[in-house]
Amino acid sequence: MSKKILVLPGDGIGPEIVAEAVKVLEHINSRFKLGLEIDHGLVGGTAYDETGFPLPEESLNKAIAADAILLGAVGGPQWDKLEDRSKRPEQGLLDIRKNLGLFGNLRPAILYPQLADASTLKPEVVSGLDILIVRELTGGIYFGQPRGIRTLENGEREGYNTYVYNESEIRRIGRVAFESAMKRNKKLCSVDKANVLEVTVLWREIMEELSKEYPEVELSHMYVDNAAMQLVRAPKQFDVMVTGNMFGDILSDAAAMLTGSIGMLPSASLDKNNKGMYEPCHGSAPDIAGQGLANPLATILSVAMMLRYSLNEGAAADVIEAAVSKVLDQGLRTGDIFSAGMTRVSTREMGEAVLAAL
Amino acid sequence: MSKKILVLPGDGIGPEIVAEAVKVLEHINSRFKLGLEIDHGLVGGTAYDETGFPLPEESLNKAIAADAILLGAVGGPQWDKLEDRSKRPEQGLLDIRKNLGLFGNLRPAILYPQLADASTLKPEVVSGLDILIVRELTGGIYFGQPRGIRTLENGEREGYNTYVYNESEIRRIGRVAFESAMKRNKKLCSVDKANVLEVTVLWREIMEELSKEYPEVELSHMYVDNAAMQLVRAPKQFDVMVTGNMFGDILSDAAAMLTGSIGMLPSASLDKNNKGMYEPCHGSAPDIAGQGLANPLATILSVAMMLRYSLNEGAAADVIEAAVSKVLDQGLRTGDIFSAGMTRVSTREMGEAVLAAL
Ligand SMILES: CC(C)[C@H](C(=O)O)[C@@H](O)C(=O)O
Ligand SMILES: CC(C)[C@H](C(=O)O)[C@@H](O)C(=O)O
Repeated sequence: MSKKILVLPGDGIGPEIVAEAVKVLEHINSRFKLGLEIDHGLVGGTAYDETGFPLPEESLNKAIAADAILLGAVGGPQWDKLEDRSKRPEQGLLDIRKNLGLFGNLRPAILYPQLADASTLKPEVVSGLDILIVRELTGGIYFGQPRGIRTLENGEREGYNTYVYNESEIRRIGRVAFESAMKRNKKLCSVDKANVLEVTVLWREIMEELSKEYPEVELSHMYVDNAAMQLVRAPKQFDVMVTGNMFGDILSDAAAMLTGSIGMLPSASLDKNNKGMYEPCHGSAPDIAGQGLANPLATILSVAMMLRYSLNEGAAADVIEAAVSKVLDQGLRTGDIFSAGMTRVSTREMGEAVLAAL
Repeated sequence: MSKKILVLPGDGIGPEIVAEAVKVLEHINSRFKLGLEIDHGLVGGTAYDETGFPLPEESLNKAIAADAILLGAVGGPQWDKLEDRSKRPEQGLLDIRKNLGLFGNLRPAILYPQLADASTLKPEVVSGLDILIVRELTGGIYFGQPRGIRTLENGEREGYNTYVYNESEIRRIGRVAFESAMKRNKKLCSVDKANVLEVTVLWREIMEELSKEYPEVELSHMYVDNAAMQLVRAPKQFDVMVTGNMFGDILSDAAAMLTGSIGMLPSASLDKNNKGMYEPCHGSAPDIAGQGLANPLATILSVAMMLRYSLNEGAAADVIEAAVSKVLDQGLRTGDIFSAGMTRVSTREMGEAVLAAL
């Protein structure tokens, strides 16, 4: 039976980077005879402009029917002022995650040896960096109820959100993290704020409990403030990190930036059957949209992740990753990763170079 | 009328670093004829061991009566397993903050030119770094109700905390931040997650409203994930940052670590009348406690902050800061900031050197 891939280009640089990644996917599809059916849909601000909703029902239905989704990016200044928050581009993204149950967010932070100079950290601190951040994506304070802004008796307003996790939510993301650690260096650091927040006391307890099932994995716990500090001080101490939605949002961005080349980093958001949505770690970069300046490699590498995690085509994933490594060896660079002596290329030229290297 | 200073050494390296800082304070007291009365009290795990409470009533009463407080640090592994969370060392610290209304936490992240090498970041990225993080300290998710761990109908447990701010809480910390920016480079970046959390939508709105009263200050807004990233990418873009309790905890630690010398960084926690508690940014470092290895400079610089903010003795503060700069020029270094060619000194030797330089 053929598998369905839904492509959601989104906003800003989304369409141009996704276009390159789709070329790569099509090439792999015919070369490896995967029989993938590739369809497109609207999401984000672009979807709002056309349909009045950041996640139109048609897109949601296609997403539900798909075996895997490739997303570009969402958001842009023109939609930031939308009074009705449920219409904002970001809401489209949050709604896909929630509706599809994509609770397991994998965010690798890898330093490519060819791009070692791009980091703002000293080479000895980051060379060889390879961290995997496992972030819970459909719970925590992002979705907790009650939430809102209410008027108090004294006439003042008060804003409130709820940070909440139950045991099964913690256990299922914990399992993703332990399983990931088993496939890597068997070190897992769980990040919480158990000295202040009760919800993370439960988090820590469940991680401890789970660790009995994974005796080979060395589990440690770290407070989130210390984790932010240790990522700057000595990031190579980490193998896999696991944390909730909000802390994961912050720490994965910091970790990505340690590499200096966020334009290179893919991500996966998986449900319990490894159906997933794949997207670059970077945002929609509206300031450079439509100019051919964006780096398509994070999106191309997201295709590799899709092949490996959702389609069980590890060999095809390897081929893409090798091709990306090759274009870096050739000295090809988009603006974000450019350095003296290298060859500056456009979004499309980079995509073509990867195709040629495949 | 004489002013009262309460000294709370706390746990771990607290007593030894505070001892050096108190010598400096006593010297300044007699030299500048400040007429300060210096008293001592118990807090943290040490207080729990002696009295059964991390903040005994006597300490709280002394803290309430004092004009300013100097704190070492609290916490240690021997108290981490305390079942009753209200007895943990950290709770003593949180209770002082809350009971005394110390809502305004000022955390400078300054790179000392003499210690430029200590940073894990490249010199050009951090040289001259001078950021002030203004963190709200008595509200937000640290203190929000309801909170706890409850059992659901299906028998599972669920942990929950509440992230809440009302308008006046936001306004008063906003004022501290705008006033701080007025005394510096007049740039203020407010950090929130307004694309997801309603409580920070209100935060952003109030910051905007306040900015009308401070037309000279250039206000910007940044999402917390981006802020964590920008601190790694280009920290010098920031002058003053303002944010809530939880985000401030994370970002101020990351910012402190950018300097590579967290043993150098003081902090102030102020109430609405500028009465304050002063403490080093670093923790109680139980692993090196009692060995004379700890760096007392952050605590000594906390005394300088105390003189400047709570006692209105800016000239005395300048004298201390100059003395610290002088010992660094002399090449004296505790282990945490040691580098080749410098002279390694103990906690006490460093304290004595500052006294001599005064
Ligand atoms: C756009 C935003 C809602 C989103 C998030 O906070 O999850 C983004 O920052 C991310 O990390 O994917
Ligand atoms: C010890 C802990 C409760 C405290 C906090 O989280 O506020 C500490 O990390 C700090 O930043 O002062």
